[in-house]
Amino acid sequence: VFPEMALPLWKNLLQTTKKRILQQRRLSLYNGAHGYEEELIKKKLQQFPGGSINLSKEDDGIGILTLNHPKLMNAFTGTMMVELQERVTELENWKNGKGLIIHDAIPGLYLSQVNLLCNYEEDGMNMCMFMQNTLTRLMRLPLISVALVQGKAFGGGAELTTACDFRLMTPGSEIRFVHKHMGLVPGWGGAARLVRIVGSGAALQLLGGAARVGPERALRLGLSEETLPASDETGALGEARAWLSQYTEGPTSVIRAVKKVVTAGRELPLEAALRTEKDIFGTVWGGPANLQALVRRPKHK
Amino acid sequence: VFPEMALPLWKNLLQTTKKRILQQRRLSLYNGAHGYEEELIKKKLQQFPGGSINLSKEDDGIGILTLNHPKLMNAFTGTMMVELQERVTELENWKNGKGLIIHDAIPGLYLSQVNLLCNYEEDGMNMCMFMQNTLTRLMRLPLISVALVQGKAFGGGAELTTACDFRLMTPGSEIRFVHKHMGLVPGWGGAARLVRIVGSGAALQLLGGAARVGPERALRLGLSEETLPASDETGALGEARAWLSQYTEGPTSVIRAVKKVVTAGRELPLEAALRTEKDIFGTVWGGPANLQALVRRPKHK
Amino acid sequence: VFPEMALPLWKNLLQTTKKRILQQRRLSLYNGAHGYEEELIKKKLQQFPGGSINLSKEDDGIGILTLNHPKLMNAFTGTMMVELQERVTELENWKNGKGLIIHDAIPGLYLSQVNLLCNYEEDGMNMCMFMQNTLTRLMRLPLISVALVQGKAFGGGAELTTACDFRLMTPGSEIRFVHKHMGLVPGWGGAARLVRIVGSGAALQLLGGAARVGPERALRLGLSEETLPASDETGALGEARAWLSQYTEGPTSVIRAVKKVVTAGRELPLEAALRTEKDIFGTVWGGPANLQALVRRPKHK
Repeated sequence: VFPEMALPLWKNLLQTTKKRILQQRRLSLYNGAHGYEEELIKKKLQQFPGGSINLSKEDDGIGILTLNHPKLMNAFTGTMMVELQERVTELENWKNGKGLIIHDAIPGLYLSQVNLLCNYEEDGMNMCMFMQNTLTRLMRLPLISVALVQGKAFGGGAELTTACDFRLMTPGSEIRFVHKHMGLVPGWGGAARLVRIVGSGAALQLLGGAARVGPERALRLGLSEETLPASDETGALGEARAWLSQYTEGPTSVIRAVKKVVTAGRELPLEAALRTEKDIFGTVWGGPANLQALVRRPKHK
Repeated sequence: VFPEMALPLWKNLLQTTKKRILQQRRLSLYNGAHGYEEELIKKKLQQFPGGSINLSKEDDGIGILTLNHPKLMNAFTGTMMVELQERVTELENWKNGKGLIIHDAIPGLYLSQVNLLCNYEEDGMNMCMFMQNTLTRLMRLPLISVALVQGKAFGGGAELTTACDFRLMTPGSEIRFVHKHMGLVPGWGGAARLVRIVGSGAALQLLGGAARVGPERALRLGLSEETLPASDETGALGEARAWLSQYTEGPTSVIRAVKKVVTAGRELPLEAALRTEKDIFGTVWGGPANLQALVRRPKHK
Repeated sequence: VFPEMALPLWKNLLQTTKKRILQQRRLSLYNGAHGYEEELIKKKLQQFPGGSINLSKEDDGIGILTLNHPKLMNAFTGTMMVELQERVTELENWKNGKGLIIHDAIPGLYLSQVNLLCNYEEDGMNMCMFMQNTLTRLMRLPLISVALVQGKAFGGGAELTTACDFRLMTPGSEIRFVHKHMGLVPGWGGAARLVRIVGSGAALQLLGGAARVGPERALRLGLSEETLPASDETGALGEARAWLSQYTEGPTSVIRAVKKVVTAGRELPLEAALRTEKDIFGTVWGGPANLQALVRRPKHK
């Protein structure tokens, strides 16, 4: 039933994971060796156009990724998937970035219309690998990231929010792993990441029950960090930026290193995480921000 | 002090774990290479008869595993251990299963009388490997599983509950890792699984303190999911079925896939979990439940 | 940017981790192969003297590790780092130990003055490896350990507390990962361990925000286990001992085995943790404490 399991030696796995976390080398989970055909699936996705994804790189090091869903469908289209990949590449190259907010231009359904796009089994698997590659790179960006949920983050939209470090919700919004009702399970990595966010018991309940999770339950589960007052859309974005800025204030190199040590701690076995932490420490130790801090404060107090 | 550590190469470890999760190949943790003698220990266990374990496979895909402890001992006997293994095999072969409830016929002590059974060191280690093999297979069944705790789940009984996805407790019931008072620590995998359920700090407290954990504390710790009202025994089983059915309603293939993605997310390192999620997604994508869902709903809404 | 990644084969990694957990073989994370020069860094650290670390091994199996910071600096000096290593070695050799409390003689700042000590990059990396080696060995001692936080555990002090199983705080005390304000991130393993204690989301907030965490917030986060009433210093130590004794009461071999199964559960992948649990179970099964417990209690009740 299952394709041959082409897992590399764990030594390589571990080293590769470490490189991906530390150097954003764009080493993707899937390549030709896994039967993944990137150019083919991109071509297919281009045939389902609509909407766009914009990136604004602000002066304070916060990136704003805005999803403009097409009005009629209110969904994640093929071209939006391709654009998401491009924006992630742009963010990997943005050396001044410290934080990221993902939000909807018009809060609506994030529900991915993937079944409309891909009619054959190979298309489904390729789309799945395409999105896992993108979302894994998104998750490992050296930026502290927030998904601002104002509308209904359903299906693929719910999976997208799990690729961020934090989720902030506005009153009335919902996160819902609706896959069961589509005869599916997550395939963009949403299940693997959800287990790490809320634990395996809660993940089983959310997926098995296809439950609507509002802000209160999300807070209790640890799926959301805070419920924003959010009188209106623009207000919510401002509130999300204020919330995020608590953690991004400070020298760029240090904030990026903070995200990296946490990513290493989250993804690697303890001993590998410790070694990686040492390497990351080495990138800020004796650096400009460190030296300036030493000058600023009296030595013996 | 410790036997030679015969760990296979991690590559194999990871592939084997994946196979066990996905294909229920009955690949056990221990075999002859680990000094494990299955036929020998089964013969020994048969010498300590009493009680039985019944399995009822209901039409709605819920299996009911009933522990009939012998009246005098109120314990887990040798033949019950052997029967548990047989029932797990039966459940692995049950293609229509979606959920599982484990409960006591007459709520009592689950406390295992293992010390009575096994007088020599080799017997202890073989019994330990026998039960770890069975409980690991139980934990990985593609069924959403519930331990219904109505009496006192002590010792081996407490360990058994940790092999289920959820624990539901009735008022007055208790889970207690009483091992310390027997001069022991868990050996059926209860410690390794408990750490994953409640965290290492709480696990250390429960094992180090041999604390009686009632429904309230269990809820707070995440050891129990819910306290059932449970006016009487039959009532409790009905309540547990109703609770479980929230998560098992829907096509069999999809519910089983839900359990599998969560198992993969819980047991595998992130990158391996992502790859496994893709494979599981491939088993439902374009399948009957998925196609039916597409037909049912209007395409652009 | 990063030094060559000299990760051993995962097979070795896993076996080595297991040996370190089970046998306290003092196998350190870093050795010459990692460019680590222990004698060199110890010599450097000796040049920054002040304070001392005392160990008292009590009759009830509780070790009391007292940090005597130098009055003027109120900090962790070079000689204190060297002494910490020596005390950990002493604790590894203490066969009657069951618990450990780390506390300050005069509650003050634990803040490490590492930048004063190490002016060159290599010194920083060596100091980092020196402390990771010591704290990893501390964390894996077969003793249930408590950091008693009465003053301000800042920077390296905050990292030190994460190497213990539990943290107990007194009113007014604080744990603060202040590294960001020093232009740094943790390097003593504090980030990797913090992620395992409070989860990656909370860890990102604590490191990214350099937040002051008082007893209440620490409790909510799971960073602290309890707030002690602690009318005065001596009172606090007594309260911490009473708290710890709940979990250390009982036969030494059993308590040490409890800590070991939890360490294995926390650090190893599930299948390796299960196998290790079996090995640890084998060290108490049929042992004196186990046999005595069997004699004490009626067989069929």
